[in-house]
Order: sequence, then structure tokens, then C-alpha cells
Amino acid sequence: MAEELKGKRIAILAADGVEQVELDRPRQAVEEAGAETELLSIEAGEIQAVEHDIQPTEKIAVDKAVVDASLDDYDGLILPGGVGNPDKLRKEGAVIDFLQGWFREGKPVGVICHGPWTLVEADLVRGRTLTSYPSIRTDIRNAGGEVVDEEVVTDHGLVSSRSPKDLDGFCAKIVEEFAEGPHEVAHTGAAAG
Amino acid sequence: MAEELKGKRIAILAADGVEQVELDRPRQAVEEAGAETELLSIEAGEIQAVEHDIQPTEKIAVDKAVVDASLDDYDGLILPGGVGNPDKLRKEGAVIDFLQGWFREGKPVGVICHGPWTLVEADLVRGRTLTSYPSIRTDIRNAGGEVVDEEVVTDHGLVSSRSPKDLDGFCAKIVEEFAEGPHEVAHTGAAAG
Repeated sequence: MAEELKGKRIAILAADGVEQVELDRPRQAVEEAGAETELLSIEAGEIQAVEHDIQPTEKIAVDKAVVDASLDDYDGLILPGGVGNPDKLRKEGAVIDFLQGWFREGKPVGVICHGPWTLVEADLVRGRTLTSYPSIRTDIRNAGGEVVDEEVVTDHGLVSSRSPKDLDGFCAKIVEEFAEGPHEVAHTGAAAG
Repeated sequence: MAEELKGKRIAILAADGVEQVELDRPRQAVEEAGAETELLSIEAGEIQAVEHDIQPTEKIAVDKAVVDASLDDYDGLILPGGVGNPDKLRKEGAVIDFLQGWFREGKPVGVICHGPWTLVEADLVRGRTLTSYPSIRTDIRNAGGEVVDEEVVTDHGLVSSRSPKDLDGFCAKIVEEFAEGPHEVAHTGAAAG
């Protein structure tokens, strides 16, 4: 592994209700590969993490409100799950704007579990192939995405996994994709606009 | 108010993560109007209720697993919210079967907050007009429903509200609709099947 992400900056975008292990493990993986990370959220302060969607665990310090974050400052983006987390993110215009800009530039993204729900809101799964937690697959399909049931799926720099049990493969793949850098922009609805 | 639901039996369908006030207040309202209630869930035992989606409150006793419940035993159905609750319900085939049967018979339903997510999974919002918590409106629209932003919306026996702040109007309207009984079956995708 060593230093393949040395000099890269990775944003993690999450809110209250984030599944803690889906934030901690990917963060650890990219930092061990030499990257710096920043946690972005709806506002500055801290967010309440959980385990199994509804059991509160730790509060985690936010580095920056997403409205104050610049796309140019990051080389990769991680969207953890936890059912309450995307439910909050998807209501925020600044989050949707950030994600649509990110996808427009073809920068790599890792998204796991319930994380794709925010991409559904931003109309960013249309024409893409991904996986997710089982409960949200109908919503992804209804938004024009193709859902497969695999440990790790990669589609033009969009890395997706189903749940915490996929974290080994997910973490390895996001390090690889973040090292590669931006991909050719896929022709999805919002990203093509 | 008095006894307009005397002799009626009302099912409440919920799982872990149910927003407690959205279960308690409608149950209290229909019982005060003379109805008996039963809490159905994925399995027998008890469910963990929450406040504000992720703060655990009480555990609530389940009366019957939905797989053991008969449509004929109930005159009305309440679907509370809490983001984790429909996220669990929608993964269960027995829940989807129960809901599709219920809608096929045109029986009245009260659904609030994140509750409609389970109806999205069951393809039961297609062609219907309803309201919901803001975060799931894109999913409802993508599933063919029309979403409006009102305190209480009624469409052929389907009563919907946005959040706990709408509970006064929601509770009054479900009592009224449950007293009326089954409606003409609306022509939705799954219900017409």
C-alpha cells in the first residue's frame, strides 16, 4: 500500500446518523495510504454517529460546512451510510450543489450502504451501475440507476458497496480509484447538464 | 368525537426506529374514538421506538407478526414514520404483500412522515396524491406519485401528513376516514394488479 495517496486530499461527507464504521474504516484506509482527510457536513461542529442505524455511538468533529468547501480542494469523496445520514444530507441544497459539481468533474467517489440515497436526490445515479444497501435499491432504480448485488462495484470512478461487511473490498478499491484521479465524465442526467 | 370507531379494529404497522409520537398519538386518537388497535411488525416481540429519528425512547410491545395477520381482521391501517422504520419494513416480502392486499381492497390508510417509503417499495403511490416528510419526496415522485406540501392530504382513503407537527389534523382525519370504511379502489399500478 504505502504512499499511493500521498499529497491527495479526501473529503468525507456525512451528517447525524452516519454509520460510524463506514466513516472510520474508509478514513483510516485512505490516511494509511498517505492522504489527508476532511469531514464535511451540513454545518460546522460535530455529528452524532450511530451503529446499526439507530444506536448512538460517538460524536465526530466536523472540519468544514459543505457550503464553505471548494471542489478544487479535494481529490476524492467518501459518502458513508447509516439510514439517517443521507436522509438529512439530501434535504440540503448546498450538498446537492457540491455533489453535482463533483460528478460534473468526473472525480472519484466511494459510496456505501445508504449513501447512494443522496445521489438519488441529486439525480446522479441515472445511467450508472452501482450497488447499495438492499432497502434503497427500488429508489435507485426509480431514479434511473442500474443496481447489482456485488461486494464492490466500480463504474467510471464511482465505487459502491452494500454494507459494513463489504468494507475490506470497498476500502481497497477507493484507494485505487482515488490514486487514479478524475475519470472521463459519465453521461448522467445532472452530471451532463 | 365519542364512539364513531366503536367495533372497528385498526392495525398499526411499524418496526425498530419508529418515531414514537407518530405511533402513540394516532393510536390514542383511534382508541378514544372507540376502536381497538393492534401493533403489527416484522416479527413478534417488541420494537425500539425513537425520537427525532435516532434517539432511542421506549420499547413497544408487538401484538402480531405481519405474516400472521389477516387483512379481514382490520378496518384501518396506520403507517407511522421515523426514518429507520420504513427502511426495515420495505425489505420484508410479508409487509409488501400485506400492503398490496390492503390497497387492492380500498381500505383506509393513514401514513405520516417517512411512512410512505414502504408504499414506494410496494408500488402503491403510483397515480396517488399525498404528502410526506420532505426528504423522501423525490423517491415518491420517481415512483409515480404526486406530492403536495400540505398538513393533511386525503386521496380515496389515503390520508397523509408531513411530520409530528401535523398530528392534530392527521389524527382527526384518520378517525373520519376509518369511520367511512373502504373506498372505491384507485387505479394504481400494484393495486390494480
